[in-house]
Amino acid sequence: MKRPVPASGLCHLRIVLDENFYIGPGRADLLEGIDRTGSISAAGKAMSMSYKRAWSLVQALNDGAGTPLVETSRGGTAQGGAHLTEAGHQILARYRAMQEKAATAIGPDVEALRALTGRKQP
Amino acid sequence: MKRPVPASGLCHLRIVLDENFYIGPGRADLLEGIDRTGSISAAGKAMSMSYKRAWSLVQALNDGAGTPLVETSRGGTAQGGAHLTEAGHQILARYRAMQEKAATAIGPDVEALRALTGRKQP
Repeated sequence: MKRPVPASGLCHLRIVLDENFYIGPGRADLLEGIDRTGSISAAGKAMSMSYKRAWSLVQALNDGAGTPLVETSRGGTAQGGAHLTEAGHQILARYRAMQEKAATAIGPDVEALRALTGRKQP
Repeated sequence: MKRPVPASGLCHLRIVLDENFYIGPGRADLLEGIDRTGSISAAGKAMSMSYKRAWSLVQALNDGAGTPLVETSRGGTAQGGAHLTEAGHQILARYRAMQEKAATAIGPDVEALRALTGRKQP
C-alpha cells in the first residue's frame, strides 16, 4: 500500500519496541479512528482500508502489545462496536507526544534539508 | 520487503519533504554503503537487495532530490564505480543527525512505552 504523504508533511515516525510490536502513523491513525467512530470498520474505511486489513492491524497491535489496545463488544448489531482500552489510550497519547517531540527536535534540520534540495520554504 | 528491526531498535524515522522526496533508514543505509564500498551493487548486496532495486532507489533519490546525491563513473570496469556527491554527503549527515536528535527527544517515552507493554528494560 502506498501511503499518502503524512499531514505533517515531514516526520514519519515508527517506534519499534521489538520484532513483535511497532507503532507508526498508520496504526496510530487507526487507533484514533476507532476511538472516534467506535468501529473498526468505520475507522478503516476512513483510511481507505478494507475491514480485513483494519482488523488484522488491530490483531497485530493487540497481540504485539501483549495487552489489548482495542476491545470489541458483540452486542445486538451484526458488526458490534469497538473501543480503546486504557492501555490503548495511553499508547496512542504517548505516540502522539513522541511525534510532536521528534518534529520539534528536528524542525531546523528539516528546513536545512529543504534548502539543500532546492525546496521552497513552506 | 519486510525490513529488519533497525539497529537502534527504537526509532524509525522517515523525513518526507514532498511527494517526490523522502529519506528513511533504508535509503540512508544505502547511501552509507555506497560511500563505504564505492559501488551501488556492493552496497545493495550488503543489504540483501538486488542490483535493480538498489539502482532504482538511487535513481529515486537523485531525481527526487533535484540534485544528484550519487554519481557513477564508468571507467574500465564493467560495472563502474559510484560515489556520493557533496549534496549526498550533506544529506546523509543531516539525516543521521536527525535520527540522533529524534531518538534523544523521545528516549524517555520509548522507555514508558516499553513499560506500558510489559517489556523488560533493555
